[in-house]
Amino acid sequence: MKKSQDEESIWSIDVERGSRGAGADAMFVRIAASMVNDIRRGALGAGDKLPSTRVLARRLGVNRNTIVAAFDELTAEGWVVTRGARGTFVCDEVPERSARRGSTPRGMAIRPGFHVRSVRPEPDVWLQNPRAGSLDVRYPMSAGVPDTRLLPTALLARAYRRALAAPTARAALDYSSAHGAPRLRTAIAQMLRSTRGIPADPANVLVTRGSQMALDLVARLLLRPGDAALVEELGYRPAWHAFAEAGARLVPVSLDGAGLVVRELARHDARCLYVTPHHQYPTAVVLAPARRAALLAHARERGLAIIEDDYDHEFHFDGRPVAPLAATDRGANVIYIGTLSKTLAPGLRLGFVAASARTIDELARLRAVSDRQGDHLLENAVAELMEDGELARHVRKMRRIYAGRRTALADALLRDLGDVLSFELPPGGITLWARVAEDVPLDAWQKAASARGVGLSTARDFDIAGRPSPYVRVGFARHDEHEIVDAVRRMRRALVDARRR
Amino acid sequence: MKKSQDEESIWSIDVERGSRGAGADAMFVRIAASMVNDIRRGALGAGDKLPSTRVLARRLGVNRNTIVAAFDELTAEGWVVTRGARGTFVCDEVPERSARRGSTPRGMAIRPGFHVRSVRPEPDVWLQNPRAGSLDVRYPMSAGVPDTRLLPTALLARAYRRALAAPTARAALDYSSAHGAPRLRTAIAQMLRSTRGIPADPANVLVTRGSQMALDLVARLLLRPGDAALVEELGYRPAWHAFAEAGARLVPVSLDGAGLVVRELARHDARCLYVTPHHQYPTAVVLAPARRAALLAHARERGLAIIEDDYDHEFHFDGRPVAPLAATDRGANVIYIGTLSKTLAPGLRLGFVAASARTIDELARLRAVSDRQGDHLLENAVAELMEDGELARHVRKMRRIYAGRRTALADALLRDLGDVLSFELPPGGITLWARVAEDVPLDAWQKAASARGVGLSTARDFDIAGRPSPYVRVGFARHDEHEIVDAVRRMRRALVDARRR
Repeated sequence: MKKSQDEESIWSIDVERGSRGAGADAMFVRIAASMVNDIRRGALGAGDKLPSTRVLARRLGVNRNTIVAAFDELTAEGWVVTRGARGTFVCDEVPERSARRGSTPRGMAIRPGFHVRSVRPEPDVWLQNPRAGSLDVRYPMSAGVPDTRLLPTALLARAYRRALAAPTARAALDYSSAHGAPRLRTAIAQMLRSTRGIPADPANVLVTRGSQMALDLVARLLLRPGDAALVEELGYRPAWHAFAEAGARLVPVSLDGAGLVVRELARHDARCLYVTPHHQYPTAVVLAPARRAALLAHARERGLAIIEDDYDHEFHFDGRPVAPLAATDRGANVIYIGTLSKTLAPGLRLGFVAASARTIDELARLRAVSDRQGDHLLENAVAELMEDGELARHVRKMRRIYAGRRTALADALLRDLGDVLSFELPPGGITLWARVAEDVPLDAWQKAASARGVGLSTARDFDIAGRPSPYVRVGFARHDEHEIVDAVRRMRRALVDARRR
Repeated sequence: MKKSQDEESIWSIDVERGSRGAGADAMFVRIAASMVNDIRRGALGAGDKLPSTRVLARRLGVNRNTIVAAFDELTAEGWVVTRGARGTFVCDEVPERSARRGSTPRGMAIRPGFHVRSVRPEPDVWLQNPRAGSLDVRYPMSAGVPDTRLLPTALLARAYRRALAAPTARAALDYSSAHGAPRLRTAIAQMLRSTRGIPADPANVLVTRGSQMALDLVARLLLRPGDAALVEELGYRPAWHAFAEAGARLVPVSLDGAGLVVRELARHDARCLYVTPHHQYPTAVVLAPARRAALLAHARERGLAIIEDDYDHEFHFDGRPVAPLAATDRGANVIYIGTLSKTLAPGLRLGFVAASARTIDELARLRAVSDRQGDHLLENAVAELMEDGELARHVRKMRRIYAGRRTALADALLRDLGDVLSFELPPGGITLWARVAEDVPLDAWQKAASARGVGLSTARDFDIAGRPSPYVRVGFARHDEHEIVDAVRRMRRALVDARRR
């Protein structure tokens, strides 16, 4: 074995240099360090007996106390052990040696020596078809995700720089409130009052990392193992996953053309209902007004918590956005969840909960347990973008662009796939839900589309029981008009491929 | 009630302006908007019948189809409902009205209409004395927190700006890996190999928001309701809280001058042990080498998971840092948790877990449920600071400064409180653990110190059973030498106050 020349051995210590440079203290540290090197290199092996302090002191020409100090150091660090009068030995379990010996150090164990459960609840909760919503294809046409090319990165960089330079930066970088930065809570409450009719004060707002954290905290607050959680029969799997992780039984409720079939709720005794009333996920249906009223009345009567996920409130194209359930409910039975990730950047992870102050305070306690606190620097930066209207301007711009892409998608689908798809223009959201003609081999089409670089999700991918039904979800936000035309053309070709088989 | 003049009523619409400006489409939108204003102001009440489309068209001088379109709009938004031939009526449940009527809009309910549990486990888990560790005093002398005045904000701002301008920014702002940014996982694995002897690959690293998220994820992965989790009898309450939230029974293990009393472990059948071997929290004792070996042997024999929290590895002043248990264990029974929050900024929330790849993958699945993914932009920025050595330079600087403050604190305590405190200089960490003379009225001293602007924690604040014992924890990182002298002088005066009572 070739020994590295730059690794100092206990036998090659330059005592003069050591004692001249930094005194006796430095000497014992250097001797200890050299001995560690010898152990690491294997020059000293496990169980080897070290020379006595007297012998070593003589050979190195130093005071014996210096060697005693070095041995104490090595003992404290766990390299050597003193066995009474028998002497001092290299430990059997030496901290770093096994990993460093030889030229190909062994890595970590693949499997642990204790039981690790599999974090996959019942198969119907986890994605049936994990590739369906994947972004790893050229055109992830079914993903309800924004176009990251349009993100206001320069604006963000400036706001972040300002937040770091502000007098509040020190407090923002310290341990602080689990509720979120006060400035952002205020800005969100103001936004909820002025644009969504929710009479929120800052005390009614919890800032979260994104809507997923909000869902997880709400699930952990409300649900105990065995509790029933009602969900839409077609819906958002990551939310279901949070409920399942909290130990809940998921109970599906039917959907029809007017949204959730509210009269079904009376059948079930549940702790909570998870619902997407503005643009139902994934069908984009707006929950009908009569159903909204019936739902709130039912919740009040039964003490049911409604988790309202208004995940893309800003993207409503025809008429005004419909006011959330939370606007009518005012913190009685609705826990309202929103996100800034869709408008600002998915990777920034900023969401919020609006609810009664008591609910918010308990959620904040849970948040302290799970994540201590948010990134207050980022939260202050985004608060500034909200205060000076930059965020609202950006949202208006995105809405205009996405409305154009909605039209482009509808035109392309009618032109290239009008014989097999029927759909209504969604009033809002960033996806379109289309019925597929009965004679289309749906699975084969999905597979062929994937081969042509287009990710397509069908109803089965959103169905809690994994039942197939002849619908596809097509997103229009992520790609520009030219890309949409190309993607739809590929969908057409994939259909031809699928029918040939 | 005074009516606002700028609120347009359905009866005051300027048809000419509307039709000239933006055509028929804009007209129906304006009519609908005016009608919403009338409903909001109360000029149209719940259940009121609207004039027929024909009457309205005549009165406003527009085409009847325009009114029909406006009514359709209002119906879709949930403001009005058409009851067949009987006509169109204002809805009983109007989305925003109740919150807006009158001049003093009512806010949110204080308490929700569903059951919300209290997020406070047994009283011995939550802080006995929440003010003890509070940062809201002039000198939070017991908090183990860094000095935020020394944070490298300019460095951070530059790294963040670069990360935003980099070609990877778009991917970092998109939905991406729950494991953390690949670049940061690589940098952390490299750091663990070179400075801590842990043979980690990037596959062995999960990036978390901070160590609290790591603790929460590990607790949720390992523990089921009723499982026993072993903890040090004096310890870190936020960790215990995460275990308690996962449903665990907390079982204390004794401590002595050599750290955890490992032989006690044999008494208990537990899923995991939470331990701080490097600088025991809060006593700063380094776990003795023989105990380390015994602990690892016990864990292997019993299939026990050891959660090793190395929360301030970087701050070791005398000799080298002791290699972590994880360096010897190599992913078999140790789940290793570290943090960058203490060195970079507590508010930035960056921590990590190092463990076997299988453990890391399951933790990442849980992380996707609880938080989707981290802030990859920030993670890339910090990876750059690690790659170019800036972080290591900053750590060396902090270590030098904190070592000086450790001396300053020890000197001040010996001078002003040497008659009542006895302690050894801690080899590392950022706090000192001092024994208090029996005749000191500890509670009264703590209270008097608080009145003089000094936060002091005693052993009871860290004891799982809330038992008093005559020790105080004194931090030395957050304040400079002058502040330390002032704070210790106040502690002395507070002692005089306490004895007078």
